[in-house]
Amino acid sequence: MKIEAVDFFYLSMPVVRDMGDGSQDALLVRVEAGGYVGWGECAASPLVTMASWNCPMSHSACKPVSASVLGLGLNDPADIQRINALVRRNSFDLLQTDHTLSGVDVALWDLLGKKLTEPVYRLLGYSCAYPKIAYASQLFGADAQATLRKAQEVARAGFRAAKFGWGPYGQGTLTQDTEQVRAAREGLGSERMLLVDAGTVWGDNVSEAEKRLPELQTCGVEWLEEPFVSGALGAYASLAAKSGAVKLAGGEGCHNFHQARNMIDYAELGYIQIDAGRIGGITTAKAVADYAVARSVQFVNHTFTTPLALSASIQPYAGLEKHCLCEFPSEPSALAREFSRNRLSIDENGCVRLPEKPGLGIEPDLEALKKYHLPVEIKVGGRVVFHSGKIPAL
Amino acid sequence: MKIEAVDFFYLSMPVVRDMGDGSQDALLVRVEAGGYVGWGECAASPLVTMASWNCPMSHSACKPVSASVLGLGLNDPADIQRINALVRRNSFDLLQTDHTLSGVDVALWDLLGKKLTEPVYRLLGYSCAYPKIAYASQLFGADAQATLRKAQEVARAGFRAAKFGWGPYGQGTLTQDTEQVRAAREGLGSERMLLVDAGTVWGDNVSEAEKRLPELQTCGVEWLEEPFVSGALGAYASLAAKSGAVKLAGGEGCHNFHQARNMIDYAELGYIQIDAGRIGGITTAKAVADYAVARSVQFVNHTFTTPLALSASIQPYAGLEKHCLCEFPSEPSALAREFSRNRLSIDENGCVRLPEKPGLGIEPDLEALKKYHLPVEIKVGGRVVFHSGKIPAL
Repeated sequence: MKIEAVDFFYLSMPVVRDMGDGSQDALLVRVEAGGYVGWGECAASPLVTMASWNCPMSHSACKPVSASVLGLGLNDPADIQRINALVRRNSFDLLQTDHTLSGVDVALWDLLGKKLTEPVYRLLGYSCAYPKIAYASQLFGADAQATLRKAQEVARAGFRAAKFGWGPYGQGTLTQDTEQVRAAREGLGSERMLLVDAGTVWGDNVSEAEKRLPELQTCGVEWLEEPFVSGALGAYASLAAKSGAVKLAGGEGCHNFHQARNMIDYAELGYIQIDAGRIGGITTAKAVADYAVARSVQFVNHTFTTPLALSASIQPYAGLEKHCLCEFPSEPSALAREFSRNRLSIDENGCVRLPEKPGLGIEPDLEALKKYHLPVEIKVGGRVVFHSGKIPAL
Repeated sequence: MKIEAVDFFYLSMPVVRDMGDGSQDALLVRVEAGGYVGWGECAASPLVTMASWNCPMSHSACKPVSASVLGLGLNDPADIQRINALVRRNSFDLLQTDHTLSGVDVALWDLLGKKLTEPVYRLLGYSCAYPKIAYASQLFGADAQATLRKAQEVARAGFRAAKFGWGPYGQGTLTQDTEQVRAAREGLGSERMLLVDAGTVWGDNVSEAEKRLPELQTCGVEWLEEPFVSGALGAYASLAAKSGAVKLAGGEGCHNFHQARNMIDYAELGYIQIDAGRIGGITTAKAVADYAVARSVQFVNHTFTTPLALSASIQPYAGLEKHCLCEFPSEPSALAREFSRNRLSIDENGCVRLPEKPGLGIEPDLEALKKYHLPVEIKVGGRVVFHSGKIPAL
């Protein structure tokens, strides 16, 4: 079969707030081939990603992403790998490319899984999908009291692990940060795993990050995530040399294989966190998972949006029994909650399992999503180069 | 003064061909503050960059670039550094950001130089701008005969160095590549410096690149540029261990300081090539130049477009006497040729000098550019979020 159509749907909450909640909008990708439909999602600015799909060519290495996707053959996993490489070859001077490719690649795997009636993880070569320990992923509260309550809630909800991140952490005083982490530990109790996400707040300032280490160690924090911007390899390695039992986690900002490989090779990470919606899709995420295994670094998904993105982000390491943690968005927006009728949920052991269905096993609820849809039209030189259609009927 | 307005103008040749000529279009940036106008250029997909300027916010780290620029104070170089950091902090999840920031940052330096009646290199702390040896930068011919003629032409034109790149190199047989490099050397004569640019053609395949080394060594090639994709640090380092007198060059794909630093720290480069129109502007390029000096790696500009971009790309290392090579686009498109009335040209020593004028010293010829202008309009949810105005009157 050939790739006949690719459509993008910009979904957004009516009001987007200035906070670290990445589930406030979503860019849904629909691919059609051979009578099948596949769905993907880019963890990216929807408008900018749409613009890169059919922008005019600038030169041979700055082509629109569509030039390397539409009309291409799609019959087996090797075809998706070929398309992934071709997009990168034809568009490496177009910076947004990797984010755009990501959602398209995810949709291609979903479609191929439906055609071959196999879950995506099987097409990737895994014989089974192991349950993963879901960590409840959420923002720090506005103050320690709010964080305490949030931690108590996720403990009650049955999670065995929780992450707190962004919000005020790293932006106020050292004392405030200490109180926040203590509150999170108190609310979770001593048995549950606690993770802390600094959201790149210290740039590449090792000494600022280092000041937080003693309290993180005292509170038994498993990892400190993104103390620094993605790619600040030297800063990560310097901090890792001092962090003791607190491991470093990072990688969500990586948008190709080499950036993730460099984080594994040089940043002294304990955990490499990959978002299939940014790194270049399931294809690239799987390559990183293979590399992480070879280098004895734990692979973890990164995702903060919809059930579709969650399923896509787990497939690349579904069959790795020892890589057993999983980011699980625990305070999604209404858009993310209403995204699909079936959702991934945690079982009595606090674990999440992939759907045993063809493809990704998550179908968007198009009727529910209509109210979130923002149509987009782009004109260049008076000519319409991009127009998002209507959300198709069920 | 405060930043009052930022406008983008998409300029394009009437026909853009599928070849490695990056001068076929240009994204011109105009900044207005305190009655002054500054000009910059993004080496980027114009449409996608425009979309990122005023796209709707997705979350706190995925804001439109405009949110961190418009209305901000601009009185001294530290203000530009602050704006540069703020854009990255507020938009690090919007992948296109760095390319957009680049042109804005360049325009801010141009404007500030005009206000303070100083060339930009002086605002960067250099007391003088040394002449640089211009290397004629061009594409390989379709065959060895065509390359021979091109090499003879640049020798006649007075260049002391020339680079050939892209085109068929690395895409045919080893014999064809050998013939191409020999033809370039024959046409230049034995005295002129010869550089070869593989345009990332071997991905990260070290053995494919290695096969070309003997002929490059025989022909006295100074550097092999981008044998691999940007960021493939291990592949670069492996090849460098075998390349002998042929140094490796790379870095044009870097879009922030850390990526360039990693190429310097881990890729065993002889030359780090930085495009001010991609790395995050003159601010970031200067930071890389400082780091290159500290690590004894040669800094070289990357540019393939207009005289404005050429001036911007030289400023960050203008005062480094020992970093004496300069990429000089020697076969620009009509758009790039007509871009401005004054141009940088080579002197009797084959050297190029920066204009001793306030700012960047290059004023776009707006009248000539009107015929290349493509207006852009972007609507989201029925609302116009971006509209490029007319090119202003002279």
